[in-house]
This record gives sequence, C-alpha cells and structure tokens, in this order.
Amino acid sequence: MHYPNNILKQPLKSISYGNRGMDLENLLNLSNLYYEEQNRAFIFKKPTPIGVVDVHYSPKGKIIDKAYFKAPSTLDYNGLYRGRYVEFEAKETKQKTSFPLSNIHPHQIKHMKRILEHAGIVFLVVLINQQVFLLDGQDFLDYIYQNERKSIPYSYFLEKGHIIKEKIDPPLDYLALVDQLYFGGTI
Amino acid sequence: MHYPNNILKQPLKSISYGNRGMDLENLLNLSNLYYEEQNRAFIFKKPTPIGVVDVHYSPKGKIIDKAYFKAPSTLDYNGLYRGRYVEFEAKETKQKTSFPLSNIHPHQIKHMKRILEHAGIVFLVVLINQQVFLLDGQDFLDYIYQNERKSIPYSYFLEKGHIIKEKIDPPLDYLALVDQLYFGGTI
Repeated sequence: MHYPNNILKQPLKSISYGNRGMDLENLLNLSNLYYEEQNRAFIFKKPTPIGVVDVHYSPKGKIIDKAYFKAPSTLDYNGLYRGRYVEFEAKETKQKTSFPLSNIHPHQIKHMKRILEHAGIVFLVVLINQQVFLLDGQDFLDYIYQNERKSIPYSYFLEKGHIIKEKIDPPLDYLALVDQLYFGGTI
Repeated sequence: MHYPNNILKQPLKSISYGNRGMDLENLLNLSNLYYEEQNRAFIFKKPTPIGVVDVHYSPKGKIIDKAYFKAPSTLDYNGLYRGRYVEFEAKETKQKTSFPLSNIHPHQIKHMKRILEHAGIVFLVVLINQQVFLLDGQDFLDYIYQNERKSIPYSYFLEKGHIIKEKIDPPLDYLALVDQLYFGGTI
C-alpha cells in the first residue's frame, strides 16, 4: 500500500526496534492508516496540542512563527472500532527492567479510569526490551493502585501484558489483540 | 465553575452570537469542560494538526520557530458518551439563507459516512442566523447525495436540524439533544 509521506515524522528517530529504524509512533501511525484503508477502524493520533504565540499570513496560508508544546490531558490515540470507543497511549522506554511511571501524567491516569467507567476501551502500548506490549487499562490501574513504586517492572508486562505481533501490513497488528481482549475472542 | 484561561482562544472573535461575544468553538469547549467536570462525557476538540518546520530548545522546553496548519481529514471533536463513540464538526456561517458546503472537505464527508457505518454517532453543529443547530450526520449526507447544490439552505436546518439550547452551564447543551436523538428519548 501507499503511505503519504507526511505521516512519517522527519527525521525518524532510530531506536532499537528490530531492524526497522522506525519508532513506535510511526509504526502505530502506519498501522492506523492501514486499518482505515481496510475500512476496519478509525483510530488516529491526536495532534500534540500547541500554544501559538505568533503568526503571520502568507499567500499559502497562516504561518506560525512561535509556539510551544502543551502537556496532553487525554491519551495520544483515540477512535472507533467495531462500534466501541477506543483510546490508548503509546510509550517507549530504553530501560530494560522497568517502565517509569513518570511517562504517564496523573491527569492521564484519572482520564483512563473515567474512560473505563464509561465503557470505553483503554490500554497502553509500551515498547520495552524490543517487544511491544498491549497492557489493558484496568491491569495498569490495578498495578499502580496496589503498589507504591515509581515504575512498572518488566515482569508485570510479561505476566499481564500481551505482545503485539509485528507484520508487514499492518506493522503492529494491535487490533488482533483488541479482538481477543475486548470482543470475546480467545487468547 | 472555574474554567482554565487557556481554554479560551485569544483574541476572541466577536461574532453575532447573542451577547456573549464568544465564538462557537469557545462555547463548545466550555460545554465539553463542563461535561468532563460532571463526569458525564469525554469529548474534546482535536488540536489543529500542524507541520513543524523549525524548532529550538530552551530551558522551558522545545519551542517551535516555524510551522504551518494542515487540513484535517476527520472531524474537529470526538470522544466518548454513554458508552458510544461521538464525533462532530462545528461550523459557523455569516450567510443567512444557506450553509456553504465548501465548509466541509470531501474527505470529511467520506469519513462521516464511514463513522456511521461503524455505529458511531456523528453530526454537525452549525451556527447560522444566530441559532446553533445540531444536524444529524445521516440527514447531512442525505441532503448532499440527493442534491447537486453547493450549499444547504437554511430551510433544511429548520426542517431537519435541532436547535441546541443556550444555558449557563453548559453554554451549549448539545448532549441533551444527543440523548433524545441517539438514546431513544423523545424530542
């Protein structure tokens, strides 16, 4: 399939993810484009919110001269799949033994709790030790409410997480796991 | 209730909407904040996507030195309400007799069709003649597929649309209409 150039962030961060040289966000963006093309799901990364300070007008449109990035209060990705609301956050860590909880803001944790209460599907996608895990939102909340630690050990991902398979199309087939976990398939 | 300052775009566009001096987007943002505070719905405007050209790093974080606005391919607002996926677009027109269809991009129309096919709730919120209408996505698509015109006449909003009531909190109580239209209430 053909991917538009502008879906790929430039320059690509080269992280240790297989031999792709592509970061987690790009792999998820490509997967979401594939799902959309297949008319299967409509899940996209929200643009990072910015605060615009200065603009000027050019013949091609409004140009931003100064702006800064704001902290998000929801999760990065959301959309519609099989009639359900889906929201998730994607994070990578270079640490091998644990996932630092400083990666997730307190207001994002509160938000996850509320999405669950309102029957949304919510989870994390975490790249750790060159594996990409889907960790269900409730399993994430269970861990942080039952433990006073500042990180989630890798062993918890092995115990409760689900490895997302790498494929050609889509590169990360996370909806296969969503089918199993949230729509009554077997694991 | 207290609204954070940064939810209000500065400077406020002064349009002819009652005596508020606030534009449709701000009224919807305030309504969505109210719904979130009430733990009722989690629907937010997506940030406008931007293409970042230049950045530099300051002690306060990454600062954007050059960027441009991209055209959105989905609708402006999306989220979760009563277990359902909700997506809508908000538009204002100063025209009194019709709503120009140039306000809605062709890829947004295709997107609306697909959201409906996948059991999402989708609609337009249109400010015309100092009234704010909710127009169901299917009614919108019916009109544009059955007519070759470049605009939707005001009379169609009077016939098929639903006027969103102004209140103090929330300023535009569109979920009251969503309850009626999509959750089996009476109109």
